Amino acid sequence: MLKKIITPRISETNITGHIGHTVIPVWLEEGYEEIIRLFSQNLAEPSLITVNMNIDFLHEIFFGKDVEILTSVKKVGTSSFILHQDVYQDGILCVRASTTLVHFDYSTHKPASIPKAFRDILKEHVS
Amino acid sequence: MLKKIITPRISETNITGHIGHTVIPVWLEEGYEEIIRLFSQNLAEPSLITVNMNIDFLHEIFFGKDVEILTSVKKVGTSSFILHQDVYQDGILCVRASTTLVHFDYSTHKPASIPKAFRDILKEHVS
Amino acid sequence: MLKKIITPRISETNITGHIGHTVIPVWLEEGYEEIIRLFSQNLAEPSLITVNMNIDFLHEIFFGKDVEILTSVKKVGTSSFILHQDVYQDGILCVRASTTLVHFDYSTHKPASIPKAFRDILKEHVS
Amino acid sequence: MLKKIITPRISETNITGHIGHTVIPVWLEEGYEEIIRLFSQNLAEPSLITVNMNIDFLHEIFFGKDVEILTSVKKVGTSSFILHQDVYQDGILCVRASTTLVHFDYSTHKPASIPKAFRDILKEHVS
Repeated sequence: MLKKIITPRISETNITGHIGHTVIPVWLEEGYEEIIRLFSQNLAEPSLITVNMNIDFLHEIFFGKDVEILTSVKKVGTSSFILHQDVYQDGILCVRASTTLVHFDYSTHKPASIPKAFRDILKEHVS
Repeated sequence: MLKKIITPRISETNITGHIGHTVIPVWLEEGYEEIIRLFSQNLAEPSLITVNMNIDFLHEIFFGKDVEILTSVKKVGTSSFILHQDVYQDGILCVRASTTLVHFDYSTHKPASIPKAFRDILKEHVS
Repeated sequence: MLKKIITPRISETNITGHIGHTVIPVWLEEGYEEIIRLFSQNLAEPSLITVNMNIDFLHEIFFGKDVEILTSVKKVGTSSFILHQDVYQDGILCVRASTTLVHFDYSTHKPASIPKAFRDILKEHVS
Repeated sequence: MLKKIITPRISETNITGHIGHTVIPVWLEEGYEEIIRLFSQNLAEPSLITVNMNIDFLHEIFFGKDVEILTSVKKVGTSSFILHQDVYQDGILCVRASTTLVHFDYSTHKPASIPKAFRDILKEHVS
């Protein structure tokens, strides 16, 4: 399980004093950026693309207190895998998200098998 | 059906030359901002909250060409409704999204029935 | 003079109901994106970098009404030029900005002379 | 002097692999958010507005390494003050910024004197 702390920013606070829901995918991406880096030597040669994102917004998130993002691998397929993420603030589960990423070969423009080395690392984070 | 044109911005273009997936929820929100305004006299007294967002990313979106967002109402419940959105660029369906919004009463901190006047307007956009 | 219309977004509205000042540079960049495109065949081979930005915030900008950005070229030097931008909402001058861009050669990592063809185009926008 | 660490985000990385210049004001605001909080009990009753921002972009900033923002108070006037900020990555000075904030009374819609208690705190950060 990956663990990431995010400090909500003034500019992410909307007119109601909450963090706008459109900010959450930005934070979730930071929650799994370690995995992105495992796959891509550098960001300019990406090999992972996001194909689905399903987010439940369960509770308001406020400016002024850090949030914690817990990321685990849910399922590893041949060329794709699913991440599960929980976002907590002050002990309250505020967001629950599921993201499907595909290992993509830009030269053939098709999904590609996840190499065994990466598959093994992903499996370490299954929970 | 609501129709909205968005011009991708330089700052929304990521290292691969595509629009990053985290930008899409911002655009989708603009796709249905007319509906948000129907419910709230002003943004500071919101009565709609987003409780779920499910997005399929089907095709890359590039800088340099406008996108079109088509928004329709999928289902109207007692206190919530579901929007369906399709995002096209150059005639290609790039994103398909489903968003669930709840009519929320901040004074009781509970979902509230959608007033008949709004329900009628929402039904006009059902497709 | 270049003219660009921007529609403020819900997600750009901050807790006070205004557009946060951090949003303005994003809009200003859209105000001169035509010039960026003149210099770069594509965004991945940039030849213009921003070296200075000086912004006066003169009046609040609100969600709900379009803004108009007027961009003119102020001064054209050997390898750099200065843009002047005025942002209006509802006939009120809200932002006045000055941006200095340098024609940059990434291979030598040094400023490079602005080619005559571009210099001529820039001069058309001097005011 | 205030010190803040920011981790560049994937979504802040532009097509050239650098952090886009439009991201910097967002980071700078986080660099002085402690000062904003001193003035406003909560963000919804702001008493500080940004009236000028002058930023020199001296060096590219990259994804993958934290940046450090050093903020000091430059000058304290009757109703306004100026902040100076330096942004470092890997020991290199990448951004130098000056921001002028005004203590503003929204009821009279005019600048207001900075209360002595805040003036004293600001003076502690003068350098």
